[in-house]
Amino acid sequence: MMNDETRLKTAAELAELVGGRVVGDGGVVLKGVAAVASARAGDVVFAEDAKTVESARGCEASCVIVPEGARIEGARCSIEVARPKLAFALVARELRPAKRREATVHPTASVAAGATLGEGVHVGACAVVGEGARVGEWTQLLAGAVVGEGAVVGRECVLHPGVVLYENVTIGDRVILHAGVVVGADGFGYVRDAEGVYHKFPQVGTVVIEDDVEIGAHSCVDRGALGETRVGRGTKLDNLVQVGHNVRIGERVVIAAQTGISGSTVIESDAVIGGQVGMGDHARVQSGAVIGSQAGVLPGKIVRPGVWWGTPVQPLEEYKRLNAMWGRLPRMREEIKELRAQLKALEARLGGRGGDEGEKVKR
Amino acid sequence: MMNDETRLKTAAELAELVGGRVVGDGGVVLKGVAAVASARAGDVVFAEDAKTVESARGCEASCVIVPEGARIEGARCSIEVARPKLAFALVARELRPAKRREATVHPTASVAAGATLGEGVHVGACAVVGEGARVGEWTQLLAGAVVGEGAVVGRECVLHPGVVLYENVTIGDRVILHAGVVVGADGFGYVRDAEGVYHKFPQVGTVVIEDDVEIGAHSCVDRGALGETRVGRGTKLDNLVQVGHNVRIGERVVIAAQTGISGSTVIESDAVIGGQVGMGDHARVQSGAVIGSQAGVLPGKIVRPGVWWGTPVQPLEEYKRLNAMWGRLPRMREEIKELRAQLKALEARLGGRGGDEGEKVKR
Amino acid sequence: MMNDETRLKTAAELAELVGGRVVGDGGVVLKGVAAVASARAGDVVFAEDAKTVESARGCEASCVIVPEGARIEGARCSIEVARPKLAFALVARELRPAKRREATVHPTASVAAGATLGEGVHVGACAVVGEGARVGEWTQLLAGAVVGEGAVVGRECVLHPGVVLYENVTIGDRVILHAGVVVGADGFGYVRDAEGVYHKFPQVGTVVIEDDVEIGAHSCVDRGALGETRVGRGTKLDNLVQVGHNVRIGERVVIAAQTGISGSTVIESDAVIGGQVGMGDHARVQSGAVIGSQAGVLPGKIVRPGVWWGTPVQPLEEYKRLNAMWGRLPRMREEIKELRAQLKALEARLGGRGGDEGEKVKR
Repeated sequence: MMNDETRLKTAAELAELVGGRVVGDGGVVLKGVAAVASARAGDVVFAEDAKTVESARGCEASCVIVPEGARIEGARCSIEVARPKLAFALVARELRPAKRREATVHPTASVAAGATLGEGVHVGACAVVGEGARVGEWTQLLAGAVVGEGAVVGRECVLHPGVVLYENVTIGDRVILHAGVVVGADGFGYVRDAEGVYHKFPQVGTVVIEDDVEIGAHSCVDRGALGETRVGRGTKLDNLVQVGHNVRIGERVVIAAQTGISGSTVIESDAVIGGQVGMGDHARVQSGAVIGSQAGVLPGKIVRPGVWWGTPVQPLEEYKRLNAMWGRLPRMREEIKELRAQLKALEARLGGRGGDEGEKVKR
Repeated sequence: MMNDETRLKTAAELAELVGGRVVGDGGVVLKGVAAVASARAGDVVFAEDAKTVESARGCEASCVIVPEGARIEGARCSIEVARPKLAFALVARELRPAKRREATVHPTASVAAGATLGEGVHVGACAVVGEGARVGEWTQLLAGAVVGEGAVVGRECVLHPGVVLYENVTIGDRVILHAGVVVGADGFGYVRDAEGVYHKFPQVGTVVIEDDVEIGAHSCVDRGALGETRVGRGTKLDNLVQVGHNVRIGERVVIAAQTGISGSTVIESDAVIGGQVGMGDHARVQSGAVIGSQAGVLPGKIVRPGVWWGTPVQPLEEYKRLNAMWGRLPRMREEIKELRAQLKALEARLGGRGGDEGEKVKR
Repeated sequence: MMNDETRLKTAAELAELVGGRVVGDGGVVLKGVAAVASARAGDVVFAEDAKTVESARGCEASCVIVPEGARIEGARCSIEVARPKLAFALVARELRPAKRREATVHPTASVAAGATLGEGVHVGACAVVGEGARVGEWTQLLAGAVVGEGAVVGRECVLHPGVVLYENVTIGDRVILHAGVVVGADGFGYVRDAEGVYHKFPQVGTVVIEDDVEIGAHSCVDRGALGETRVGRGTKLDNLVQVGHNVRIGERVVIAAQTGISGSTVIESDAVIGGQVGMGDHARVQSGAVIGSQAGVLPGKIVRPGVWWGTPVQPLEEYKRLNAMWGRLPRMREEIKELRAQLKALEARLGGRGGDEGEKVKR
C-alpha cells in the first residue's frame, strides 16, 4: 500500500521487539501484516487460539504469531508470545509506521503571519492556520484542515482533511483527528425569555484534548460554556460521536460510534462505552463501567463499575432477567385467565360466593 | 480569549441593560463572564438560587448577578434581577459581542463573477461563492465554507469552516451555521423498478432557513424533493442532527444532538426535542410538546402538547407507570405461581376437581 | 432551478420513454416536474391512487402521470402508466438530467503530478487529487473534495464539496457522494496491554464502493482493518450513516439516516434498514430482511428475511404482540391482586388453611 512507508525486519528482530520466541527460521525477512485468508510471502499473521491456529496452518504468510506453546506445522516461522494480538499490533506499527509527510507548506495553504509552526510541520493544500496558533514539531495538517486563531496543537499529530479546530482549543501530542472532526464549536445552551425567545448562553470556554487521543471522522467535541471540555490521555473516540460542553472524559476511555454525551457529564478513566449510547447531562460513569450499545443514561445518573445495558441503563444481569420476563408475558396472561376460571369453578362447587359478592360485581 | 472582542462596562451600565438593581459599587468595571469556580477580578458571575448564591459567596468575581432580594455578602457588587441566568446571557453578549471579522475576500477564496457580496462581507481562506449566489451585509464565510450557485444568505450570518450550502437554498439573517453544516443535500428518496433497481426520485426542491437560527456542527438539512424544507425563525439545532426532505420545523424549536427527522414531518413552534430522538415520516409534533431523549415517534404519529418519552413515544406519566411495572414482573410471576399452588391445595382439600377436569388435563 | 440543465420534451416523447399512453394533447411541451400543490404550466406531476388523482384534478400542471385506466378531468394531457411514481422519476431525470459541470481544473485546485484525470473531469475550487490517484471520465470533484493518494474514482461520479477519500480506496462508476462523506478513515480497533494502554490494531485494508451507489452527507465508511469494506452496486445510504471496518453491504441495499453498522457485519443484497438502527459486529442481515428504525441487532445475530423491530430485534408480529402486553401490565397486576383476594375469601369460607400455613406466613 502506498499510504505507509514499509520497513523490512527479520522474524528474530520482531520476536525481540515483542518479547517472543522464534520457532523455525528467524532470518526470514518480513515486510507487512495481513489477514490469514489473504496473506502472502513476506507477511506476518497472528492466531489467538486453537481454532485460529488451525486455520492459519498452511497459509502463505512467512510468519505466524501464536500463543505460547502453540505448535503450528507447515509455517516457515512462528513467534510464540503471551498475547499474540497485541504483538501483532506492535509488529504492524514497526513494519508500517505512520506516514511522515514532507515538511512543507503547500502553496495553497494559508498560515497567518503570527502563527508558529514547529520543525518538520506539514501543511497540506488549502489548510489554514489562524493568527496566534501554534503547531508542534512534525505535526501534519492535511488538505483543508483548519487550525483556529490561538489554537495550540502538539507534536506529531495528524489532522486529517477537513478537521476544524475552533479558536483557542488545545490539542496534545501524537493526537490523531480523522476527517471532519470538529473541536471547539459552541455548546448547546440557551436561556429563554418571557416571550419564548432563546438567547445564547455564553459558550466562551475551551477544549483540551490530551496526548495520544484518537478521534474518528465527523465527531464533535464542543467547547465549554464557561470552563473547559476535556478528553483525557490515550482515550479513543469512534466516528460521529458527540461530546457536549463541559464534559470531562478521563484517560484510556473507549467510546464507539454515534454515541452522544450531554453537557457536564463525567466519564472516568478506563470506562468502555458502546455505540449509539445516549447520556443525559451531569451524569457520571465510573471507572470500570462498561455500557452496552444503544443504552440510555438519565441525567445525573451514576453508573458504577460493571456491565450496564438498556434504557434507562441497568446492570446487564438485571436487564437479562427482566428481558426474559418480557417473552413470558403472554404465558403469564394465559395463566391468570386459567386461575380465574379455576377459581370460578371452585366457587361454583361451593355454591354462592359469600359476603364480598357486592364488591366483586362492581369490577 | 482571543476569539471575541472585549468591551468594558460598569456594573451600573449592565444593571440598566438587564433591568436590574445594583447593590454595592456600581462603578466597578467589568470585562468578562465566568463560572464561579474560576472567576477572577473583572468577571461577572451569576447565581440562580439559595445554593448557588451561597457558593458564589467569596468568589473572586467583581460582580454577581443574583435573584431579587438575595443578599450576597463579601461581593464587591451584585445586580439583583428577576431572572439571573437570562441577565447573565445578555451581559455576556454585551461584554463579548460575536466577533466581526475584516471585510475582505481572502486571496485563496473563489467568488464567482456573477455572485453578489453585500457591504462588509468576510470571505475566508478557500471559501467559495458560486455563480448567482448572494451574500448579505456583514456576513462572515469562514475558511472553506461553500455557498452553492444561486444560494441566498442574509445579513450578519456566520458560516463556520466547512459549511456547505447546496444550490439555491435560502438562509435568513443572523443565522449561525457551525462547522460542517450541510444545507440542501438531496433527500433520501428512490423508486424501485420491477428488477429491484432503485431510481432516484427527483430531489429538486429547496431549503429555507429563517432568521436567527443556529445549527450545530455536522447537522444536515436536506432539500425538499419537490417542495421545500423549512427551519423556522429562532430555532436552534444541536450537532449531528438530521432533517429530512420536506420537513417543516416551526419557530423557537429546540432540538438536541443526533436527533433524526424523517421526510415531511412537521414540528410546530415551541416544541422541545431531546437528543437521539428518531421520528418517522409524516409525523406531527404539536406546539408545546416536549420529547425526551432517544424517544421514537412512529410515522404519521401526532404528538400532542405535554411531555413524551420512550419508543414508541407515550406520555411521560404513562411511561413511568409502565416502566415501574417492568421491575415488578419477576414478583408478578412468583405471585402467579403461588396462586396456582394455593388453588391446587384448596382443590385437594375439597377432593376431586369437578366437571371441568377434562379441559384442565389438556393444558 | 439553476442547478440542473433543463430539457424540453413533449408529452408523447415522455410517454414513449416510460412505456405509457397519452390521453389528450401529446404535443404539449414539458420542462419540469413539480408537486401537485405548486405545479405550473409546463410541469409534469403524478398521481398514484384514486385520492391523489382526485387532488390533481384542476391543478395547473400541463401533464399528469396517472395509473392505467384512471381518468383525470380538466388536465390538458395525462400519461397512463402501470407505475406512475416510477415513471415520474424517469421523466424527472429526462427533463432535468444531473448537471454536468465544465471540464476544467480550478486554479485553486491541487492535482498531483502523478495523478490521472480522465476526459471531461471537473476539479472544483480547492479540490485536491493526491499522488497516484486516478479519476474517471466526466467525474466531478466539487469544491474542497479530497481524493487521497492512490485512490481510484470511476466515471461520471459526483463528489460533493468536502468529500474525503483516504488513500487507496476504490469508487465505481456513477457514484454520488454527498457533502462531507468520508471513505476510508481508519476503523476503530485497539488492543489493550497489561497497563491498560490501547494500541492501534492495524487499519491497513481498503474500501470498495461499487457502481451506482449514492451516499448521504457526512456518512462514513471505514477502511478494512486487514481486508476490505465493501458497499455493493446500486446501494443507497442516507446521511450520517456509520459503516465500520470490514463490513460488507450487498447490492440494492437501502439504509436510512444515522444507522450504525459495527465491524465485519454482513448485509446481504436487497435488505432494507431503517434510520438510527444499531448493529453489533459480525451480524448478518439476510437478503429480504427489513429492519425498522431504532432497532438494535446484537453482535453475531442472523436476521432472516421478514420485518424486524425493536431492541434486540424480533419479528415485527412478535414485537407487536409483546408490545401490546406492555400496556396490559397494570391490568394484569390488578387481576393478580383480585385473585389473591378471592382465594383468601374462599379459604376463609372453608375455615382454616390446611397444612401449608407455616409456609404461607413467611411470605
